[in-house]
Amino acid sequence: MKPQRPYIALTMGDPAGIGPEVVTKALARTDLRERMGLLVIGLEAARPEGLVDGFPEHPGQAGFVEVAGAKTWEMGKAQEACGLAALSALEVGADMAKRGDVQALVTAPVCKEALHMAGEKVEGQTELLARWDGTERYEMVAVAGDMRVMLLTRHMPLREAIASISTDSIGWHLDLFHETLRSIGIEHPHIAMAGLNPHAGEGGLFGNEESRILQPAIEAARARGQHISGPHSPDMVFLDASQGKNDGVLALYHDQAFIPLKLLSKGRGVTLIAGLSYLRVSPVHGTAFDIAGQGIADETNLVAALERAATWVGDQQSAIGDTVT
Amino acid sequence: MKPQRPYIALTMGDPAGIGPEVVTKALARTDLRERMGLLVIGLEAARPEGLVDGFPEHPGQAGFVEVAGAKTWEMGKAQEACGLAALSALEVGADMAKRGDVQALVTAPVCKEALHMAGEKVEGQTELLARWDGTERYEMVAVAGDMRVMLLTRHMPLREAIASISTDSIGWHLDLFHETLRSIGIEHPHIAMAGLNPHAGEGGLFGNEESRILQPAIEAARARGQHISGPHSPDMVFLDASQGKNDGVLALYHDQAFIPLKLLSKGRGVTLIAGLSYLRVSPVHGTAFDIAGQGIADETNLVAALERAATWVGDQQSAIGDTVT
Repeated sequence: MKPQRPYIALTMGDPAGIGPEVVTKALARTDLRERMGLLVIGLEAARPEGLVDGFPEHPGQAGFVEVAGAKTWEMGKAQEACGLAALSALEVGADMAKRGDVQALVTAPVCKEALHMAGEKVEGQTELLARWDGTERYEMVAVAGDMRVMLLTRHMPLREAIASISTDSIGWHLDLFHETLRSIGIEHPHIAMAGLNPHAGEGGLFGNEESRILQPAIEAARARGQHISGPHSPDMVFLDASQGKNDGVLALYHDQAFIPLKLLSKGRGVTLIAGLSYLRVSPVHGTAFDIAGQGIADETNLVAALERAATWVGDQQSAIGDTVT
Repeated sequence: MKPQRPYIALTMGDPAGIGPEVVTKALARTDLRERMGLLVIGLEAARPEGLVDGFPEHPGQAGFVEVAGAKTWEMGKAQEACGLAALSALEVGADMAKRGDVQALVTAPVCKEALHMAGEKVEGQTELLARWDGTERYEMVAVAGDMRVMLLTRHMPLREAIASISTDSIGWHLDLFHETLRSIGIEHPHIAMAGLNPHAGEGGLFGNEESRILQPAIEAARARGQHISGPHSPDMVFLDASQGKNDGVLALYHDQAFIPLKLLSKGRGVTLIAGLSYLRVSPVHGTAFDIAGQGIADETNLVAALERAATWVGDQQSAIGDTVT
């Protein structure tokens, strides 16, 4: 039943958002259906046309797995029934990925408020997936073009983000990032560490976090056999990444990462979760309630997530293959 | 003697750096010599071939103004004689621009160490030009593609940069930026104010500098008749700028500005000095002592500076013309 091409589970997200629409539009692309065995998971009432039941057996087919739930709902609005449907689909997809029935999980967007209504007081899918996977050791990696960025800190005031930087935390993130880059097929990943201050402090002239906090973490990671460069001038390291001069950048705060990521993503930025027992890839857009149900949503970002997932699964498999032969 | 096209003074910078080489290469471009009346200022020993003495009278010609100084020097090294030559050329160019003999000053790079040897303990040309122009009210504006960015703070630790942000300082910079954008031909400039925290604080969830410090400055500037938007999410405002959705961004710290600027400059980034009595444009590269004298320096950045200067002078002149007619 399982041919060479990867199987990828694709959850439809919150049915009141643009998830079902972009999933349907992505499925219309023959090249995607030829390249991977897509298994769409969602409500029957949102089921795209032309899908077979369960796993697709032939290239060009895509399959569908139904989750029980609402038959009607209002578009563009947070609702308990939609939160429940999104949760069910995510659970089914996560189980399949964890069991290895699929090689990757790709998720359309959910609505945080609807998840809360459905009884899950979480930030989003990442937190749920990590909990279900039984790990507290996880972190988001954002990808745009050739740039792969892991963040040390995220949604907190910049002052607090700076204050929270520690040698331990950097070491922890470098280890996880190193493993994650290996898991997507980069055998000897080169991670570039971003500095905090202008010109990475320019030898202590503009701040000493680089020598005091970052440098010891870098040296310890090198002693563990990792290829880490830096701390680099923040205004150069992302440019370097965009030109393929490193395999990943560990960034220190939200905007250090997202300013370059948004400039370079051009609608095709994706995230993956480092630390899960399987590959999970997501587009970066949300449910877009303001345009949900109008037929004008753009599937480009979801297509990019599916293509990345297939590539990474492929790289992973060939990396394993290379090791064996 | 002065035809319609703008006259632009072009200083050769430190003769031991790549300045003379990129000036010579830029002058070889007929399109530039047709578009503007270039007046090169430097040592006779570094004089590019084919220049007339003094102001060029015909399109396609370029002129030369000699400054007294060294006849020989060592390439790729900081020397007093070279610092003196760079200073002399800069003084002559600044005088011409201040008197209105030329419509803009474009400067090849100098070496800070050589300036120090020559008796001027300054950070660089910007500080000298402001002093000679008799102003303490000046600031750098960096330009890449459609993005124009003024910086509130520059070379200091990120912690200190954050601590130094004040409503007064923002108001001061907004005023200067507003005037500067008008001076390069944007009649009603829209300045976008960057926030400090992730998502500009997201309504106070991740920091309150936006409401406490930035918002009052924005409101005061609006009351003075300026078009200011924001505070914007830092990860969106530079993307917006790159798509022409604002005329300028006021950035709060070095890397908030230079991460996007370096990504988008593609070797053609330039700076101008806001607050001078004349237009001064500069490429962003330095003397590049490591490759000086090898004939491999790239003139693209200097050409971009000359083209920007000619455009801005033209926009300025048409803006003035529009007002009169």
